[in-house]
Amino acid sequence: VPKVTQEHRDARRQQILDGARRVFSRYGYDSATVVRLEEEIGLSRGAIFHYYPSKREIFAAIAIEDSRRYIDLLVDRGLDEAVRAMAGESREWLGVVLETQARLRHDEEFQRRMAEESAGDQQRVIDWFDAGRRDGTLRDDVSALDLGRFATMMINGLALRVAGGDETDIDSLLRLVRDAVSPRA
Amino acid sequence: VPKVTQEHRDARRQQILDGARRVFSRYGYDSATVVRLEEEIGLSRGAIFHYYPSKREIFAAIAIEDSRRYIDLLVDRGLDEAVRAMAGESREWLGVVLETQARLRHDEEFQRRMAEESAGDQQRVIDWFDAGRRDGTLRDDVSALDLGRFATMMINGLALRVAGGDETDIDSLLRLVRDAVSPRA
Repeated sequence: VPKVTQEHRDARRQQILDGARRVFSRYGYDSATVVRLEEEIGLSRGAIFHYYPSKREIFAAIAIEDSRRYIDLLVDRGLDEAVRAMAGESREWLGVVLETQARLRHDEEFQRRMAEESAGDQQRVIDWFDAGRRDGTLRDDVSALDLGRFATMMINGLALRVAGGDETDIDSLLRLVRDAVSPRA
Repeated sequence: VPKVTQEHRDARRQQILDGARRVFSRYGYDSATVVRLEEEIGLSRGAIFHYYPSKREIFAAIAIEDSRRYIDLLVDRGLDEAVRAMAGESREWLGVVLETQARLRHDEEFQRRMAEESAGDQQRVIDWFDAGRRDGTLRDDVSALDLGRFATMMINGLALRVAGGDETDIDSLLRLVRDAVSPRA
């Protein structure tokens, strides 16, 4: 029996999440059947559900991965890059995310899972804004928490525009966002 | 046969939209059955579907009514009041709206209807921002179109927060939004 390494498990998980994302984008959440997941991922249902107990858990894992990617972008490359990345997201995928998150709003298990997983990520956002307040690149008359909420709200509002197929002039948007969060003259 | 006046028809339409909004909020879009709509609205299915040919059309009419109410608030009372109103919206209702609009994104008939109905409303938003640019209350180095898109994005991002049950400090948010759209010092 080959030893299953952590790297192997991580690669399998990523294979599942990447394939499932394509299936969700193409068919929507409800029509992402087990057969379609198996075909696109290239693993049997047994293997898939060995790593994730349910379709809902696969979706939760992708949503958390997405959220983390945006926070990495913010922390490593700044607010502009996070906004630009959202502007370039797939319309189909964002539509599925927005619909599914709204539908799962009464699913306590899903909500608990998301809250647990995202607590540390939210703290990283607050820390990033706090560092900017201290080094003078961001305004310090609004709390890091509220700056983080504003940035999140903006990026989520942009996600709604992209999902709706609405055009956005990113340079104008970035100018407005920067002026909102910069120190007052 | 009593003469059915325009006022009567308008009152009936409003009765249908108000009742349907309560049913959608309570049960969600899919579980808003005809029986539940009849009970809550207090009209027979025949009467209801005389005014609106389908549940989808009822939903579209409510979504357009909502959008118009926000634009009226913006135009009559300013951006602050529109933001405050969204912060006070029902979490349940916003959850249903976000979910249903995402689900109907491939429904061409629904999308066409919404685009037709909202074209004039969007122009009113642009006109309001344009007036502010001309009278010096808003910055004029960003187009009225882009200011309107920014405001819409902000308010929609806030809707997502409210639907998710997330807290928002409205005074901080308003300070950031005002500084984004005000003339630069």
